[in-house]
Amino acid sequence: MSDVQVPTDKKYISYNNVHKLCQEAAEKIKEFKPDLMIAIGGGGFIPARILRTHIRVPGSKNIPIQAIGLSLYEELGTGQLEEQIGVEVVRTQWLDFSTLEKHSGDLIGKNILIVDEVDDTRTTLHYAVSELEKDIAAQAKKLGREDEKTTLHVFVLHNKDKPKKAELPKDMMDSGRYIAARTTPDEWIAYPWEARDIEEHTKFAKLQNND
Amino acid sequence: MSDVQVPTDKKYISYNNVHKLCQEAAEKIKEFKPDLMIAIGGGGFIPARILRTHIRVPGSKNIPIQAIGLSLYEELGTGQLEEQIGVEVVRTQWLDFSTLEKHSGDLIGKNILIVDEVDDTRTTLHYAVSELEKDIAAQAKKLGREDEKTTLHVFVLHNKDKPKKAELPKDMMDSGRYIAARTTPDEWIAYPWEARDIEEHTKFAKLQNND
Repeated sequence: MSDVQVPTDKKYISYNNVHKLCQEAAEKIKEFKPDLMIAIGGGGFIPARILRTHIRVPGSKNIPIQAIGLSLYEELGTGQLEEQIGVEVVRTQWLDFSTLEKHSGDLIGKNILIVDEVDDTRTTLHYAVSELEKDIAAQAKKLGREDEKTTLHVFVLHNKDKPKKAELPKDMMDSGRYIAARTTPDEWIAYPWEARDIEEHTKFAKLQNND
Repeated sequence: MSDVQVPTDKKYISYNNVHKLCQEAAEKIKEFKPDLMIAIGGGGFIPARILRTHIRVPGSKNIPIQAIGLSLYEELGTGQLEEQIGVEVVRTQWLDFSTLEKHSGDLIGKNILIVDEVDDTRTTLHYAVSELEKDIAAQAKKLGREDEKTTLHVFVLHNKDKPKKAELPKDMMDSGRYIAARTTPDEWIAYPWEARDIEEHTKFAKLQNND
């Protein structure tokens, strides 16, 4: 028996693989010149920070990263899965508009990139996009700037090829404003930041060619 | 000539090294049972997300991560270094207190862990700690809860052993509420998320035993 068997229980992803996926996607992302990233925490924090390195234009300032915190409450007290969209997403942090406006100006008319690790059921991304659209539209109306076009883009490391519980805007999907570094089958993706033994995790990722 | 020369221009840190530094520090951090992490973006995002894995108590919920964004304006238009503390730190995002209160309650009486990558001049950490102390004290006064003790802790991956431009509270330093995974000489630390070639970067980190 060999002890270099490729594990099949999960898809193991190394940190260096995450880095390379961000670097590769950055080429496409740079084309639309994002003004601002919005990282969905905790999963979006790591790809967003890595992306910032790779989409930076030499001689220019870093692209600002704003963070929002969203969690899924998949299980209710009854043990039943909550199907109603919106109810199951819990905000733990939202944009701090007053600081944002002082520093980067408002979001109206901007190219905004929303970043998360994985698109599983699409519920969190749906929530983030629709709530941001609402906030931006309300602000534009208040300021009489409804003619300025704000464009939301989405980046994830992995999109799971499975039936989704929620949708993203059709024009986003059709016009390439949804970017997944990889589309994967519906399998368990083991990200490195979850690893209890990072050496073993990296070894498994290498064996699966995810390094 | 050998081509496995150890590079001496910078201290190269691999992702796996960052992971292990967080895992090691988590043992100490778990002792004071943090209620909340505040990640200083962009540098604090990656260690905060990794720490969350390692300080999680099995069977309990994840510790929430709130993000704040702070940048240093080291250079003024004159080319002179700005020495005045407070002026040179720019907030790009601050806590979203209204969402925070709905989700995690307020910060009063909590054990809070502030996370950043590196303590260089200490200016950013000084700013974060003193501004948070002010906000919490104002809120406690407003609510008549000045008797509740809020405790701030700091975690960084690397503390550079050099003269600092700003201080942290003496009782924080004296009572072990300042945790640096490593104290290093005043050298250039090359973090992996800045790498243009992550394979080479990791190789250099291995040669320097920072993997």
